[in-house]
Amino acid sequence: MASVDVGIGLLGYGTVGSSVNRMLVESADEIERATGHRLRVVRALVRDPAKERPFPAGDGVLTTDFETFRDDPEVQIVAEVMGGLSPAGDYVRALLGAGKPVVSANKQLIARDGAELFAAASAAGVQLRFEASVCAAIPVVKVLRESLVVSNVHRVLGIVNGTTNFMLSSMERGGSYADALAEAQALGYAEADPTDDVSGADAAAKMAILATVAFGSRVRFEDVECRGIEELEPVHVNAAAQLGMVIKLVGIATLLDGAVDVRVQPALVERSHPLAAVDGAFNAVMLQGDAIREITLEGPGAGGVETASAVVADLVSVVGTAGTGFLQNDACWRELARLPSSEWRSPFYVHLEVSDRPGVLAHAASRLAAHDVSIAQLVQRLEDGAAAIELVLHRAPFGEVSAALREIAAFPEVLRPPFVLPVIAERGL
Amino acid sequence: MASVDVGIGLLGYGTVGSSVNRMLVESADEIERATGHRLRVVRALVRDPAKERPFPAGDGVLTTDFETFRDDPEVQIVAEVMGGLSPAGDYVRALLGAGKPVVSANKQLIARDGAELFAAASAAGVQLRFEASVCAAIPVVKVLRESLVVSNVHRVLGIVNGTTNFMLSSMERGGSYADALAEAQALGYAEADPTDDVSGADAAAKMAILATVAFGSRVRFEDVECRGIEELEPVHVNAAAQLGMVIKLVGIATLLDGAVDVRVQPALVERSHPLAAVDGAFNAVMLQGDAIREITLEGPGAGGVETASAVVADLVSVVGTAGTGFLQNDACWRELARLPSSEWRSPFYVHLEVSDRPGVLAHAASRLAAHDVSIAQLVQRLEDGAAAIELVLHRAPFGEVSAALREIAAFPEVLRPPFVLPVIAERGL
Repeated sequence: MASVDVGIGLLGYGTVGSSVNRMLVESADEIERATGHRLRVVRALVRDPAKERPFPAGDGVLTTDFETFRDDPEVQIVAEVMGGLSPAGDYVRALLGAGKPVVSANKQLIARDGAELFAAASAAGVQLRFEASVCAAIPVVKVLRESLVVSNVHRVLGIVNGTTNFMLSSMERGGSYADALAEAQALGYAEADPTDDVSGADAAAKMAILATVAFGSRVRFEDVECRGIEELEPVHVNAAAQLGMVIKLVGIATLLDGAVDVRVQPALVERSHPLAAVDGAFNAVMLQGDAIREITLEGPGAGGVETASAVVADLVSVVGTAGTGFLQNDACWRELARLPSSEWRSPFYVHLEVSDRPGVLAHAASRLAAHDVSIAQLVQRLEDGAAAIELVLHRAPFGEVSAALREIAAFPEVLRPPFVLPVIAERGL
Repeated sequence: MASVDVGIGLLGYGTVGSSVNRMLVESADEIERATGHRLRVVRALVRDPAKERPFPAGDGVLTTDFETFRDDPEVQIVAEVMGGLSPAGDYVRALLGAGKPVVSANKQLIARDGAELFAAASAAGVQLRFEASVCAAIPVVKVLRESLVVSNVHRVLGIVNGTTNFMLSSMERGGSYADALAEAQALGYAEADPTDDVSGADAAAKMAILATVAFGSRVRFEDVECRGIEELEPVHVNAAAQLGMVIKLVGIATLLDGAVDVRVQPALVERSHPLAAVDGAFNAVMLQGDAIREITLEGPGAGGVETASAVVADLVSVVGTAGTGFLQNDACWRELARLPSSEWRSPFYVHLEVSDRPGVLAHAASRLAAHDVSIAQLVQRLEDGAAAIELVLHRAPFGEVSAALREIAAFPEVLRPPFVLPVIAERGL
């Protein structure tokens, strides 16, 4: 890459693609200072060249023909900003196979086919970077792969979906799930069909990518245990507040004794924990490892400009490291077992609704004790002859907690199935 | 750098140097996966080779002679982990001049002589990296230089001194400045002579480095306006709590209309602001820019292992990017003017102690209004015929606020000089 100009090809030229082109034009001097090269968009593959675009491409740049794009010798690095699994996946594979480095903003593609694409890039001896596929401008992939090489990261905690985080902040201020969803939709944070966000699927795709990079072992979207926020009620949010905590949709990836557990679910977070302060549509990722204790990165996790900025950062890194191949695309270099869900350990919060009969509390406590699960905090509230019991349990294996709760649920005094969430409390201070 | 082994030279072999060697040995496989190379310490310059060390160097590695070190062809990259300005500065200059890339953990050296060293590295065509010189394992230099190339960062906010942050957390829980200092000293967070921390000098050196990197213009240690925490009293901490804020020692670097302002001083931080949650000995840096809105990095800002992990990350980055020179060492590529202190704008907090005479409040308010400074919040407390007035002022130029306060201080009713701190409130949500 000795020429002064590096030709960039864009797969897709929508909101993100337009922003990428604009940034490359407007920041050409900064990029040349960092890398010694000037980057220029020479080709963009689109479906409809006639469409109006926020920052128009140059004359003759737009094409509808993939082969023209792939075979253009001027295209030296490709940014995939089209999204979707197909045809984006086939295009990326073909371009890597043709020896072109690729930068992808495509969360679904990397979460599902990442391992194959990393292998294809390695086989072709070219780089595949994907910073923009997770948390937009927050540079968590670069930090994991280039700064924390020797840190043995064994836990990743993330608030990686801004829509649900906004909704939970809104529920904290009072208001039902339905109110919070309506507010998020009115402000444009949530889609008309919010399923992908509120079910946790969006967060699960991001956690699959983060866990893969952090642990070096393939974690697919399907490997992530996932629970959304649809079942949360004001009663849970209020109980959390009483306990000095807030409810967040948290991704938790754990590496324990050579096995991996990745999950997305609502969790109680202690107010003093850095993740508790992540407000509104922001994202945060906390990385815990041997040498670093914990490092937290927070910022806007979505947005066209923010995503484009991560794409450009990846392009800059490819140009800046093209001679050496740093990094070596070996995001999956080992195969770790999946930790059985029953062995996953955490403190837990339990909400129990029981008829107010003497002895039920002692009975429940004895079932927990029988499974070696001890109680850290207990709050009991009375309402019309029924009682709500809020329990915070010390760190215990999920299997033991579940077994005790199955026994407790069988008591005639227990009116509804127990509601369980993990608690995020400890930090590396 | 085609050989499988890359020889590393260590300038200094104390706590950090020993940790670097241990990490290079124990993480050799991870490093080879990331870079394709195995790194090995081949030389370490020390004063006393006989000294007992936590992780001993290999046979024949230790030397006391700088020329032997410099001229050893096996030393391909140097990590400077000796600290101090002299002889570290001369050694680094000589090694860059001899064409050896250097990684430095030396805050004082980079803060004072950074610009000359960057130029020396550029002239020699080798890399100079310095991640470990600021905030230990928090990868803020890499993020600024490699991820935020096109983000036009215009503001850096930092809690970059763990000792004072620990002391302020302790004062928040009640207790005087003297108590907090004694506690920090007992726990080993503060030195017997705490001046460097409590005066803000340590934070000022770090902010000088961060501002230089963020704005690409030289900011020296001497350019940082600096105020320590020695004058803080429980009354200020309590007033902050009443206003829903906490007091932190904050570094604030601002790029405004092509001029730079860098300062370290106690500031009031709103509880909902991410910096308010930074607790104990942790550090955090918030970067605000056009494309990214704001990105916050938090983690342990000190410690031998944490610092060593940043040194190793820099070594890995040098190896991984050696063929291309990424980045180009141009951390200072322009000369920005220094913003006159009077034009620096912020919301401000003012603590006034006045005799309880009617009209003093109206009088003070009219002086502020005369300087176009408006009041956002006001709390008045009465104590034994005297009154404490806590004011939060809307964003205004420091010069106008100061002028109004000079006029107010001249009132006979004002018992002590007004006490002023900036307020950190706004965020990019």
